[in-house]
Amino acid sequence: MELWFKEIDESQSGLTFKVKNVLFSKQTPYQRLDVFETDFYGNVLVLDGCVQITQKDEFVYHEMLSHVPLYTHPNPKNVLIIGGGDGGTVREVVKHPEVDHVDLVEIDEVVIEVAKKYFPEVSCELDNPKLSILPMDGIEYIKSKKNHYDVILIDSTDPVGPAEGLIVSSFYQNAFDTLTDNGVMAVQAESPFFYPEWVRKIYRNLHGVFPVTKFYLSFTPTYPGGMWTFGFASKGLDPVTDFAPSRVPAGTSFRYYTPDLHQAAFQLPAFVQELCRE
Amino acid sequence: MELWFKEIDESQSGLTFKVKNVLFSKQTPYQRLDVFETDFYGNVLVLDGCVQITQKDEFVYHEMLSHVPLYTHPNPKNVLIIGGGDGGTVREVVKHPEVDHVDLVEIDEVVIEVAKKYFPEVSCELDNPKLSILPMDGIEYIKSKKNHYDVILIDSTDPVGPAEGLIVSSFYQNAFDTLTDNGVMAVQAESPFFYPEWVRKIYRNLHGVFPVTKFYLSFTPTYPGGMWTFGFASKGLDPVTDFAPSRVPAGTSFRYYTPDLHQAAFQLPAFVQELCRE
Repeated sequence: MELWFKEIDESQSGLTFKVKNVLFSKQTPYQRLDVFETDFYGNVLVLDGCVQITQKDEFVYHEMLSHVPLYTHPNPKNVLIIGGGDGGTVREVVKHPEVDHVDLVEIDEVVIEVAKKYFPEVSCELDNPKLSILPMDGIEYIKSKKNHYDVILIDSTDPVGPAEGLIVSSFYQNAFDTLTDNGVMAVQAESPFFYPEWVRKIYRNLHGVFPVTKFYLSFTPTYPGGMWTFGFASKGLDPVTDFAPSRVPAGTSFRYYTPDLHQAAFQLPAFVQELCRE
Repeated sequence: MELWFKEIDESQSGLTFKVKNVLFSKQTPYQRLDVFETDFYGNVLVLDGCVQITQKDEFVYHEMLSHVPLYTHPNPKNVLIIGGGDGGTVREVVKHPEVDHVDLVEIDEVVIEVAKKYFPEVSCELDNPKLSILPMDGIEYIKSKKNHYDVILIDSTDPVGPAEGLIVSSFYQNAFDTLTDNGVMAVQAESPFFYPEWVRKIYRNLHGVFPVTKFYLSFTPTYPGGMWTFGFASKGLDPVTDFAPSRVPAGTSFRYYTPDLHQAAFQLPAFVQELCRE
């Protein structure tokens, strides 16, 4: 028997790969969750039919979501992550020694359990003493804090179902209010090739709330098209001109992120620039 | 009936899409050639089972292969394209008014015929008076010219079968000899995620021959992983420091390439830098 996974969207196209074993399958209160074992990608976490992380390429997304905002902020002490129950973003955030505390607000506790069991190198910092895990809806949580976080990272699924409210203006306004005076935020912002309308909507809604809004790109092979957008938004800090490569300590090395790439990632292809306009 | 195309490689994964109609299928003297009609990608050209171009995203590859070397060279008059029978690279090259003449060396004339029929907006400059089409093997052709071309573009299929000889040292030495004293070359250089050994081999072989060898990246959604490497090699010109954004005339616009992206594309992710070392 051969088992093949397919992630097909409105484009009637997508990624397919051979599945060696189905390690886990469950309908949680929030979503369908599957874990597949594969030869090439290692274990793969799938939510509602969409690949979230694979052991082979998760480093790209987690490094780029985390280090761009954290190295832009001169002194990130308090960090909020919404979503990201797999722990990959936490793992990158706690590499910054200035960070005192991280709150991880994940609506679906099953994601955390599964990550601990099947993705040990992704979830490895979920027991870090600097971390609090808050199993609740980030949209509600964010209303409860004012002027508290230096950095917010939105590490969400596609903006449908439980994550739909994470790209609307009222959510971004609450995020703005939750940030300190020189706070910064980064959000996963979808594919400019397959979901240009989502990219456009995220840009416009962020831009309507934040004085500084700039988008950047990375290559994530297992997301549709391999080209993935992140939104950077802040109360004033610019991720290119307020970033100095010297802020990254000598000897620090990552698998994807580099100080030069931090700045280069904001140079968007012409057709993506078109989506990131008022 | 539903017809689905799949491009699966050793990773046991790949792109799949729904085919509306099969427009053309033929075993040429060199390769199997198919043209599919799709809703999302438009027409798709497939050689030996590998997607070469789609109407929706071919602009990325053709712009990045062409404009990076052509805007690096201060006065590109004579250009050689090896492969590229679809005409997409020719279309971009003749946008440079300094170019006096282009030689297109395509081994498979069926590619040219098919491009003219099914990809009119790609092949639209194949009757340009500045162009000569030479239906022969580029590996042989390049031995016949010395000190002639300002720019060489290697627009080839994967380095197996007829294209295998396009990534070996002896071919690069012949290309070096064919270039003028300040000549530059760009080559399609595969996926660092799926085919890292090819990227490494192309880098090393180019670096063994050319004083300047730098690699750059672009996003091509329908190539494996969406992340595609190009190799730049020259007798002395540096594609970053010898390029001035002012060389791109005001008012010039492309769909992917921008002067800022020209330079940013050379800032490689850490794991790709590892492949592009001696």
